[in-house]
Amino acid sequence: MRTQYCGQLRANHIGETVTLFGWVDRRRDHGYVIFIDLRDREGIVQVVSDPERTPNSYKIAGDLRNEYVIKIVGRVTKRPDESLNPKIPTGEVEIYADEIEILSTVRKQLPFQVSAAETESVREELRLKYRYLDLRRDRMSRNLQLRHQLIKTMRRFLEDQEGFVEVETPILTRSTPEGARDYLVPSRVNPGEWYALPQSPQLFKQLLMVSGLDRYYQIARCFRDEDLRAERQPEFTQLDMEMSFMSQEEILDLNERLVCTILKTMKGIEVPRPFPRLTYAEAIDRYGSDKPDTRFGLELVDVSDVVKDSGFKVFADAVKKGGLVKILPIPNGNDAISNVRIKPGGDVFKEASEAGARGLAYIRVREDGEIDTIGAIKDNLTEEQKQEILKRTNAKPGHLLLFAAADANTVNKTLDRLRQYLGNELGMIDPDKLSLLWIVDFPMFEWNADEKRYEALHHPFTAPHPDDVNDLTTARAQAYDLAFNGFEVGGGSVRIHQPDLQAKVFETIGISEEEAQNKFGFLLEAFEYGAPPHGGIAYGIDRWVMLLSGEDSIRDVIAFPKTQQARCLLTSAPSSVDEKQLKELQVASTYKPKPAVS
Amino acid sequence: MRTQYCGQLRANHIGETVTLFGWVDRRRDHGYVIFIDLRDREGIVQVVSDPERTPNSYKIAGDLRNEYVIKIVGRVTKRPDESLNPKIPTGEVEIYADEIEILSTVRKQLPFQVSAAETESVREELRLKYRYLDLRRDRMSRNLQLRHQLIKTMRRFLEDQEGFVEVETPILTRSTPEGARDYLVPSRVNPGEWYALPQSPQLFKQLLMVSGLDRYYQIARCFRDEDLRAERQPEFTQLDMEMSFMSQEEILDLNERLVCTILKTMKGIEVPRPFPRLTYAEAIDRYGSDKPDTRFGLELVDVSDVVKDSGFKVFADAVKKGGLVKILPIPNGNDAISNVRIKPGGDVFKEASEAGARGLAYIRVREDGEIDTIGAIKDNLTEEQKQEILKRTNAKPGHLLLFAAADANTVNKTLDRLRQYLGNELGMIDPDKLSLLWIVDFPMFEWNADEKRYEALHHPFTAPHPDDVNDLTTARAQAYDLAFNGFEVGGGSVRIHQPDLQAKVFETIGISEEEAQNKFGFLLEAFEYGAPPHGGIAYGIDRWVMLLSGEDSIRDVIAFPKTQQARCLLTSAPSSVDEKQLKELQVASTYKPKPAVS
Repeated sequence: MRTQYCGQLRANHIGETVTLFGWVDRRRDHGYVIFIDLRDREGIVQVVSDPERTPNSYKIAGDLRNEYVIKIVGRVTKRPDESLNPKIPTGEVEIYADEIEILSTVRKQLPFQVSAAETESVREELRLKYRYLDLRRDRMSRNLQLRHQLIKTMRRFLEDQEGFVEVETPILTRSTPEGARDYLVPSRVNPGEWYALPQSPQLFKQLLMVSGLDRYYQIARCFRDEDLRAERQPEFTQLDMEMSFMSQEEILDLNERLVCTILKTMKGIEVPRPFPRLTYAEAIDRYGSDKPDTRFGLELVDVSDVVKDSGFKVFADAVKKGGLVKILPIPNGNDAISNVRIKPGGDVFKEASEAGARGLAYIRVREDGEIDTIGAIKDNLTEEQKQEILKRTNAKPGHLLLFAAADANTVNKTLDRLRQYLGNELGMIDPDKLSLLWIVDFPMFEWNADEKRYEALHHPFTAPHPDDVNDLTTARAQAYDLAFNGFEVGGGSVRIHQPDLQAKVFETIGISEEEAQNKFGFLLEAFEYGAPPHGGIAYGIDRWVMLLSGEDSIRDVIAFPKTQQARCLLTSAPSSVDEKQLKELQVASTYKPKPAVS
Repeated sequence: MRTQYCGQLRANHIGETVTLFGWVDRRRDHGYVIFIDLRDREGIVQVVSDPERTPNSYKIAGDLRNEYVIKIVGRVTKRPDESLNPKIPTGEVEIYADEIEILSTVRKQLPFQVSAAETESVREELRLKYRYLDLRRDRMSRNLQLRHQLIKTMRRFLEDQEGFVEVETPILTRSTPEGARDYLVPSRVNPGEWYALPQSPQLFKQLLMVSGLDRYYQIARCFRDEDLRAERQPEFTQLDMEMSFMSQEEILDLNERLVCTILKTMKGIEVPRPFPRLTYAEAIDRYGSDKPDTRFGLELVDVSDVVKDSGFKVFADAVKKGGLVKILPIPNGNDAISNVRIKPGGDVFKEASEAGARGLAYIRVREDGEIDTIGAIKDNLTEEQKQEILKRTNAKPGHLLLFAAADANTVNKTLDRLRQYLGNELGMIDPDKLSLLWIVDFPMFEWNADEKRYEALHHPFTAPHPDDVNDLTTARAQAYDLAFNGFEVGGGSVRIHQPDLQAKVFETIGISEEEAQNKFGFLLEAFEYGAPPHGGIAYGIDRWVMLLSGEDSIRDVIAFPKTQQARCLLTSAPSSVDEKQLKELQVASTYKPKPAVS
């Protein structure tokens, strides 16, 4: 039986005899003395064997290779002064190995080195294929433990402070109307019929409120069959919450306390409350984003009204077509950013262009209010317009003003992206700062110009602001997102609990009564039998762990993630299956692989 | 904002003004005074309204109907002595309703009454279709909360006492070799290929041990596409655990402490440790079952050797064919159980026959060692045989001896079933007693006579007893089940971590190297890189909640269960889907509904 984890040994254990289990992180032969770094989940400790002090183990110590699994019985000893290692928590001690037992060997060449002492960078494909080796590494092991710690902190706050009850909702269920594609599962018992994996427990958690459960939470697995982008996984985990008889203010208050508890517990950070709030409109106006990173300035300035009659066609046309002209003003940008970078081929241009911009106009502000730009702009700005632009952007000599002129969406996307790119690149983000704010007052609906109809911005169960119920098309929603350092880490809304209002919302987005009945008739019916006012929120666990661990990829905070092609390289899922299985399920693949071209 | 839950109000709140939210459990008009039972998650409190004391609310109180959702602001008052109600925790107080606000009405006829005061029994189909109403009822609400409490207790023991780390393993994965059918999910991104939903996280948890995680747990959703029996659900929940560097003894010790913590926390019961153990062989011999309920006696007696040469062909033939003759002796059974019940058409016969028995022989023991049975038995038993039978069964006058004679499996199944049926029926089970025991020393393999090969009794990763490795076909496994009042509530094993031994096991059960590589090559390969000794266990959460809540059906402890036809009556899952969805997935149903016969 283990007496301690390797990583837990400290000076106060000196003199004790301990039993340790772990992996040989590496072995070093210093002539007469063999040193073994023994590693387990909690860290590394140095083990020593030589013919005089540990005659029983010296021979076997020589047989050890990296990643062998061993058991050691030994004495905890103070390290000699010259070999104290303050870099590791166990650096004051070493273990004299009286007994070493090899429990498991390595029988093949390791695909990559596991040891913390190795700095080799390993291809992600290899790490994913040999995930069990990758997870032995300190960084990954920490990430898994941090994930556990986060979930534990959330659970305990909700259970112990707030009386939430965890309820498991089905995985084999019916499609929820969340807009993404569903994963489908054929039913063998009911041939011709399919289950869907839930995109979220949305309908079930609302039904639990109708059940009187009052406060529900779940660490819920959700599934979306999307075309995969870097930060998406086919399955992901949410902290899913729903509560009855609470206003938006009360919900936000409770959630701020949750978030403060998380940051205090995980990071030791005290965050002041209440959190700042921005309306959706203001966030888009000032940052071009509904999840702005407010750790730095670089706020956008709208000059559409100033340039709408300008002789510079690009500006005037954009406004005429209903679009915008906005500026990203960059203090001292003249020194930092050369023309080459702003013009086609440059990195700044590339960012703008990837966000959809077709060009990137700029003005450099010189001494005495002089400006420097292309002739087509300079010649077409009146002195008044120029002065107004300098005034609004609060431009000083040295300022670089980057312009986007297009439809509103493209303008905001472009300048949001440039703002993030340059804020980062110019070192304007203080890593010790924290940007945490609520975005509120989202519009209920967006106009879908292609389909010529309104669409729910969140989902069709979101309640409108009580002041706005008379014209739903322009109504604000009682919806809220939490933005954390520029990421959306949570979002939710107060829900509709009145059948009549729900019907009006469906009508607004062009869902017929028949379609509504067919898709979620059971929820609408539930509302007929006494539904409480309720609302909720969901947090993306994967993203939270990513932010708290400082990782750049969501795959580094999931034990067994899938690639962007939705594959598990470890188990080779998905895979072909026996025809017999498909026959039993009464389904068939209609996929015809393209014949190979010789 | 709510000040208290209804069910929390006590005499110490008298004099306070409270704000309550809840459902009208029922309204009673006593002439001048209206009483409302207001219900929320925590219970019921009595609300009072009359024109004198609460003039503001009297009119609206009259409008209330069952299951309306209301808000009440009122004064907590001591009930008059004559209306104290010691049956409910809030029975000392009532609330004078100064304000009542209707938040939600009931717009349709309720499909059944929710109130605790109603005793109407409701068809399960109706309860499942209107699950949100069913879950409002006290019993179901308690069950959900008890389930949460159980899981919370498990988590906290494992996290706080034992250093387990919770890790989420994939739901979209590759088929695990657990013997049942897999649910399959077509991959759109990788057409022609399929994910499987996990029957358990078995392979992943073993890989986590190879990763050095040391102690893993998960409240894991598992999926088995079985032909559904009463106690099976397509998806179910396990407490899944795995740990490294621990022997079977150490694993059982840790798990006994877990189980004791559960029973102490949930039921206030102190269970002595260590738990009793039975070997598999002994359990089958004495009880005919590997999960015996030991709260009562009625142990089986094997008399195969006594009657093997008997002139009664049924007995002699059974033994000759390799089967058994065993007796279930029932003290005072002569009085309790008539011949009619034992003979075809009787309830006792029916139980035996449903377990596979083709007949049910019996002997009634009379005064002075006389026996009473059919001639064919009586005439064919020698005095010696008779005496031996009476001696072994410890039969006294009044004893009824029920015989099963067939192959071993049928004999044990029959008498196990009769033992449970009669133990229950004769009131031999003390509900305050608790039967909790480990079944150990399972055989590694069973002989499958149909396929003429050995099969793993647990799964092929189970380690054999170290003394038995030389002949695996007869080896005992390091496997263990926990039996609780006659149910298997948990089971696990020490796993194989040596590639050579794993290969030998595959060979024994006739899995070719190619097949092994194809199915779980990734696990076998992982074992080549330094795998620790490890073992684990899994507990069925649904069954635990069932036993702790005293429910008879697993469906009563699951928020949104499926029927035996694997349907959700609330959401109508599974359902047909758009052809468009199937086209995108490149799959098709091959099911052809049979044409209706006119």
